[in-house]
Amino acid sequence: MKTTRADPQPADFTDVRATNLAVVLRHLRAHGPSSRASIAASTGLNKATVSSLTGSLIEQRLLRETGLSGNRIGRPGTALALDGSAYAAIGLQIAGDRLTALAVDFAGEQLLLWHRQFSSGPGTAALDLDPTGNGAADGRAISAVAALAQRAATRVRQHGRQVLGLTVAVPGLVSDGGTVSLSPALGWSDVDLRGLLTGSLRQPDLDVAVANHAGLAAIAELRHGGHQAQSDLTYVTGAAGIEAGIVVDGRLLHGARGLTGQIGRFSLGPAGSPTLADLAGVDQLVRRALPGFDPAELSDLTPAVEQVATEARSGDTTALAALRDTGCHLGQGLALLANLVNPEVIVLGDHYATLAEWILPAAEAELSRNTLAPAAGGARLVASSLGLHAAALGGAVAHLDRIDTGALPTAAP
Amino acid sequence: MKTTRADPQPADFTDVRATNLAVVLRHLRAHGPSSRASIAASTGLNKATVSSLTGSLIEQRLLRETGLSGNRIGRPGTALALDGSAYAAIGLQIAGDRLTALAVDFAGEQLLLWHRQFSSGPGTAALDLDPTGNGAADGRAISAVAALAQRAATRVRQHGRQVLGLTVAVPGLVSDGGTVSLSPALGWSDVDLRGLLTGSLRQPDLDVAVANHAGLAAIAELRHGGHQAQSDLTYVTGAAGIEAGIVVDGRLLHGARGLTGQIGRFSLGPAGSPTLADLAGVDQLVRRALPGFDPAELSDLTPAVEQVATEARSGDTTALAALRDTGCHLGQGLALLANLVNPEVIVLGDHYATLAEWILPAAEAELSRNTLAPAAGGARLVASSLGLHAAALGGAVAHLDRIDTGALPTAAP
Repeated sequence: MKTTRADPQPADFTDVRATNLAVVLRHLRAHGPSSRASIAASTGLNKATVSSLTGSLIEQRLLRETGLSGNRIGRPGTALALDGSAYAAIGLQIAGDRLTALAVDFAGEQLLLWHRQFSSGPGTAALDLDPTGNGAADGRAISAVAALAQRAATRVRQHGRQVLGLTVAVPGLVSDGGTVSLSPALGWSDVDLRGLLTGSLRQPDLDVAVANHAGLAAIAELRHGGHQAQSDLTYVTGAAGIEAGIVVDGRLLHGARGLTGQIGRFSLGPAGSPTLADLAGVDQLVRRALPGFDPAELSDLTPAVEQVATEARSGDTTALAALRDTGCHLGQGLALLANLVNPEVIVLGDHYATLAEWILPAAEAELSRNTLAPAAGGARLVASSLGLHAAALGGAVAHLDRIDTGALPTAAP
Repeated sequence: MKTTRADPQPADFTDVRATNLAVVLRHLRAHGPSSRASIAASTGLNKATVSSLTGSLIEQRLLRETGLSGNRIGRPGTALALDGSAYAAIGLQIAGDRLTALAVDFAGEQLLLWHRQFSSGPGTAALDLDPTGNGAADGRAISAVAALAQRAATRVRQHGRQVLGLTVAVPGLVSDGGTVSLSPALGWSDVDLRGLLTGSLRQPDLDVAVANHAGLAAIAELRHGGHQAQSDLTYVTGAAGIEAGIVVDGRLLHGARGLTGQIGRFSLGPAGSPTLADLAGVDQLVRRALPGFDPAELSDLTPAVEQVATEARSGDTTALAALRDTGCHLGQGLALLANLVNPEVIVLGDHYATLAEWILPAAEAELSRNTLAPAAGGARLVASSLGLHAAALGGAVAHLDRIDTGALPTAAP
């Protein structure tokens, strides 16, 4: 997904065509069904080019004709719409003790959303394939992910869609090759998740990827979050530590090795000073809001977070104070993002979204107070509307987005 | 300088040609004089295309023939080299009480480097053009910048170069239109510097721009800093507050409104907690290293910083402790950059570069300790070799870089 300025590549007619295919597809995604004439009028492409481009897209089953166009220019034209019936992609997400699979087709229709119980830990990612596995290694995490991926792919094919690819969302550092370099939440380091999955799935035509949770969630927000922002959006998750998915100029911030967005690590002061995650993490919030609870014993914070919301709704002062305090500290972290990368919108995701009613006011005040530019540099702070599986959605969307750049899928086998 | 994914533009043959012109220019910049045949062999462009492209570039005086090529393929070919004799650009920089002008031509030759005394403050940016000017307004800052820009442009033209443009580097927030939204160091807010300068210069053909100091310095480092990094580099300056110029994928990180890189503002903890600039700023360092000095009385920290270096070299324990402490805190700020944007190289600029011998070891240790990814995510921490006028150089380079994207200059008047 990365392009660099180093070693620029020569362009030829293929690139022009890909760019123009992208222009047509994005026009239809943004504006809904349109006639060839109105596509030509809106994009500046000439009619013959639009006819040729849409012809290819119809042949590839990415567009279909849908009767007469309503907002026509001149005589009524046949309207074209995105066709979701040929292609879909799958996203999986590992968060807490829950494995989620989600499939969505090219037109944006959700084909399935499944949840499974899941166990992670140091030995769970080892398979026979992995010679470094120790005695505790049982590989059940890989088996569980592979089994769910396999079932999801089968179901999507039953829906008549070609599966373009599958991405697993993981909290922590994921290197370019799909290796989980370090995931404190899962207890994994240097796990070649992409290689292990590819080996388990034995589907050589399936494009398997692994990527960071927050980054994929940001991709989902960009396409399905309902924000105006189209190029500079940051998603902040508290699902495991605190991580940010930073979209810059419409693309996920990649950096030198793909190791971006680790905002929760920040601290300032003498060694041992608390980090942002220590002060604003969801586990800390639960600990303070529900004095009886020990979040260390919970592998999934979701029920505890719902409990916090219930307490807050009933006016419990301990819970409300903990939420306000979390909001203040989180706002200091968000100011960092606003000061450094100047996003158009900052989206609070997953557990933060569940608790946004109580966290947002304090976070917004601190964000403003700590940003040098007035009004937080224009950044709007909002809660995600995509729920707890935004990363899985992003995993699927990442494959579909590639089509929107004009890189059409190769023919179905 | 910004492109967004929103409203993609259709491509045509002009874009292909611009891309390929860029390929040829960048090849020559990276590899030095080369024959047409070796350009074709290295870039994958066919020979007829290379002949046509280099023909245009020679006609535009961006390339020249330089005799026989050394590393030839087949029979000896005429070597082509970048030609600096036709075009140049100017950068100006306001830092402390010093105004710097620098001009560089398309081949990278420095044509002039001038310094002037400079005064800034709330009234200094007001001109008759500015109806909000109060009694203290004298506009001398604008007059000084305009006068130096005028003289530099005249001198560059005497060198026989067409002046492609001029950029003024300013510490603080600069909005897209060239307005200094807020510069605490200069005491300016909402100063339409670009508009005021354009009005003073009365040279309608001159492309005048205003941009952030750290961002321009990062552009200079990318092209002239001698780093291997070509796409992900961050420059950190302590010239006024602490600011970062963040290059992502070969382009300066712009964000929604161009208000990026304000790393010095960061703090974590109760209201009133020290910011990164409070702990690691150059003015604080001077205060601690030289107990007699009051940096608030200095409008330019350069002599004090040199004094600190002298003390450190002589083994003064107060100075050494202050430098180590600054390095530690700065390293915590750099870890933030490494965790969030994962640069390939972090360049310590200006005063930090002068003092790098003593600051770097502690900064490097803290950077590593506070980054989640091992070895700081691969980020190398280095001192700038461009001295105290990197931002002025970047201001000139920004205009020349545009040619390297294939956007050739319009004909000289």
